Amino acid sequence: MTAPFDLAPLLAPGTPAPAVKWNGFPKYNFIGGHNDAKHVPVEALIEAATTVLKREGATLATYGLNSGPLGYRPLREFLAGKLKGHAGIACSPDEILITSGSMQGLDLINSLLLAKGDTVLIEQETYGGALTKLTRLGVNAVGIPLDAEGLRLDVLKQKLEELKQKGVKPKYIYTIPTVQNPTGAIMGEARRKELIKLAAEHGVVIFEDECYSDLVWNGKRPKSLYSLANGEGVIHIGSFSKSIAPALRVGYIVAKWEVLSRILALKQDAGSGALEQMVLAEFCAKHFADHVPKLSKALHAKLQTLREALAEQFGTSAEFGDPPGGIYLWIKLPDTVDTVKLAQAALAAGVSLNPGPEWSTAKDDARCRLRLCFANPEPETIRKGVEVLAEVCRREFGVPLRSANVDKK
Amino acid sequence: MTAPFDLAPLLAPGTPAPAVKWNGFPKYNFIGGHNDAKHVPVEALIEAATTVLKREGATLATYGLNSGPLGYRPLREFLAGKLKGHAGIACSPDEILITSGSMQGLDLINSLLLAKGDTVLIEQETYGGALTKLTRLGVNAVGIPLDAEGLRLDVLKQKLEELKQKGVKPKYIYTIPTVQNPTGAIMGEARRKELIKLAAEHGVVIFEDECYSDLVWNGKRPKSLYSLANGEGVIHIGSFSKSIAPALRVGYIVAKWEVLSRILALKQDAGSGALEQMVLAEFCAKHFADHVPKLSKALHAKLQTLREALAEQFGTSAEFGDPPGGIYLWIKLPDTVDTVKLAQAALAAGVSLNPGPEWSTAKDDARCRLRLCFANPEPETIRKGVEVLAEVCRREFGVPLRSANVDKK
Repeated sequence: MTAPFDLAPLLAPGTPAPAVKWNGFPKYNFIGGHNDAKHVPVEALIEAATTVLKREGATLATYGLNSGPLGYRPLREFLAGKLKGHAGIACSPDEILITSGSMQGLDLINSLLLAKGDTVLIEQETYGGALTKLTRLGVNAVGIPLDAEGLRLDVLKQKLEELKQKGVKPKYIYTIPTVQNPTGAIMGEARRKELIKLAAEHGVVIFEDECYSDLVWNGKRPKSLYSLANGEGVIHIGSFSKSIAPALRVGYIVAKWEVLSRILALKQDAGSGALEQMVLAEFCAKHFADHVPKLSKALHAKLQTLREALAEQFGTSAEFGDPPGGIYLWIKLPDTVDTVKLAQAALAAGVSLNPGPEWSTAKDDARCRLRLCFANPEPETIRKGVEVLAEVCRREFGVPLRSANVDKK
Repeated sequence: MTAPFDLAPLLAPGTPAPAVKWNGFPKYNFIGGHNDAKHVPVEALIEAATTVLKREGATLATYGLNSGPLGYRPLREFLAGKLKGHAGIACSPDEILITSGSMQGLDLINSLLLAKGDTVLIEQETYGGALTKLTRLGVNAVGIPLDAEGLRLDVLKQKLEELKQKGVKPKYIYTIPTVQNPTGAIMGEARRKELIKLAAEHGVVIFEDECYSDLVWNGKRPKSLYSLANGEGVIHIGSFSKSIAPALRVGYIVAKWEVLSRILALKQDAGSGALEQMVLAEFCAKHFADHVPKLSKALHAKLQTLREALAEQFGTSAEFGDPPGGIYLWIKLPDTVDTVKLAQAALAAGVSLNPGPEWSTAKDDARCRLRLCFANPEPETIRKGVEVLAEVCRREFGVPLRSANVDKK
């Protein structure tokens, strides 16, 4: 009765390889979107939890609390206010759907629009998770190169024309216009308006991902695409992962009700986690406006620590910019470096990094690039981690030749 | 630039109809799995939140806290202990995956095993959400009739043979063996062993859903199928929705690592909500064992209130049993009653109910049946709601003829 059971003949086609066991975080953790542990507002979260549970803890007895399937209403009300001031978005709380992280937002929007064989346009360097999801869905993701202001509209226009001539109607243009992942670019308002015009001409949805837009060092940002288009043809997503804490799985979708009602019909999870929503709403109403600049300041300092460490350890071998916000630095190493191999060797030495090809549709071009997330490690760990990374890189690829002003040859 | 955008040409095929706006709960709420508001342990949850956040709130800065993708380790440790004592399951915390409600468990297991056109075996009367998901996936759900002990194995055996002769290999047998939804049946240990033998002979997975097994009035239950099969060929899911609070979206999957590692590879959500997991783990370690009997006692009393109210208002027109646990009563009305129509008319009068056909694969047989959830409304609301329901039923279908000892003709 308890003979070993063979599951293999029952698996659905295309099931991914089994996960490997998790063995803890690496010593020098530069991957993912982990955040600054010292800036989790623990005391204020405790206060928020206490207040909101005392007041309405009994509502946990009903699915969706007393707020219905769009999510906890006070959180949607906070967001409506925040989005108005921050992103120029005039929407009602009923045009906001709370999701379990912005990843669920991605999944829902993909479910709404995409079938196998469809085509989407996407920034050439972009969020690896978005690329993975598209690959799994069997969707053709056409990469559009970026410049210092993000999406290059000349190439986008050309691709849209090409696809039109081939009779292919792309479903959406996925963009992270405000602190692009991984380049950090912020698209200016003029280009945003052009993008909206172009997308409307071709009847393509703009899928605007604003997960990082709270973390701009000088606090200034252009109006969101959603705002500039009055919500027509734009679906907007955001998250609290980067501005409060990533382990809280709370994101949101903003869309016109005609669109949101269709997305809501696809959200078959009996609601997102209530406690996270309640505590966030209570916390944010009081503290969000003060919390974010403090976090941004700390992140900006860590970015500078990382840039200095890279300059010191890699010299001219590492090329990178000075992003205006966010938690990532996108780095180019010499063409001889294969960052997929580098990532494996570095991990063995305790350093985790995201190799370029996982974050790009142009795999060859990205072969010598990598993304480092600087938000989680403390400054001393950043310095030491970059030192270890330079040692590994030198051992494996012979670069950097000199580092920390010492000739290593 | 802001002309109305037409999304229709871009929608994926088979997109469901848009959701309708939510207008609050009905006055007499007998649907869903809502629970008893007076028994949400608010003070203990506040204490748990305070303790756990003080101790390890800073870990919210990393995805998955410090526990990796299987979920918060102290919660998995609590579950390993609870499942051992309660369900006879000997498993390690690494054979438990925390999910965002048991609904995500259903989705993940469906993703692992099912493709369009596949066949599964399912209890004839069963959880409506499971049926909806199977319909959406284009899976053929073959219903097996139930008796007082649940799944009828004589019919199951016959169906398995029939399918084998047709060359169809069913993927799983979905069962809720401990407090069946909606009938409340508990399958005895002898039948469980027979079921395991039958499934193993045919190489079919048993998908065991134990969402209600904590709520047994006398606290006694047979060992789980997972336990009796030593985990071979069984995937087990459970939830905290019914034992603590449904708005907390925390469920779990128990499976051998060879199976769980495949399920984990499909869980692409960057983890389930951390705060809910942390607070539950802290709460449960101290209070779960005391909390559940108190909740069960209150629910049992509500069930008796509902049964008395039905007897009073419907007389012999309503047939129902006396389930040994859970939060539902499955009721048969005279054959002339169409419960789908009754549900619409009742809702207009403020009474929500689940019509039988949504909870059954045998739509005709279930036409005169309905499910009432008695956990949420207070006793007086139960009595008044049943009175209103009887009035609506009499108006629409002419039954019950007599109620509350008053001839209504």
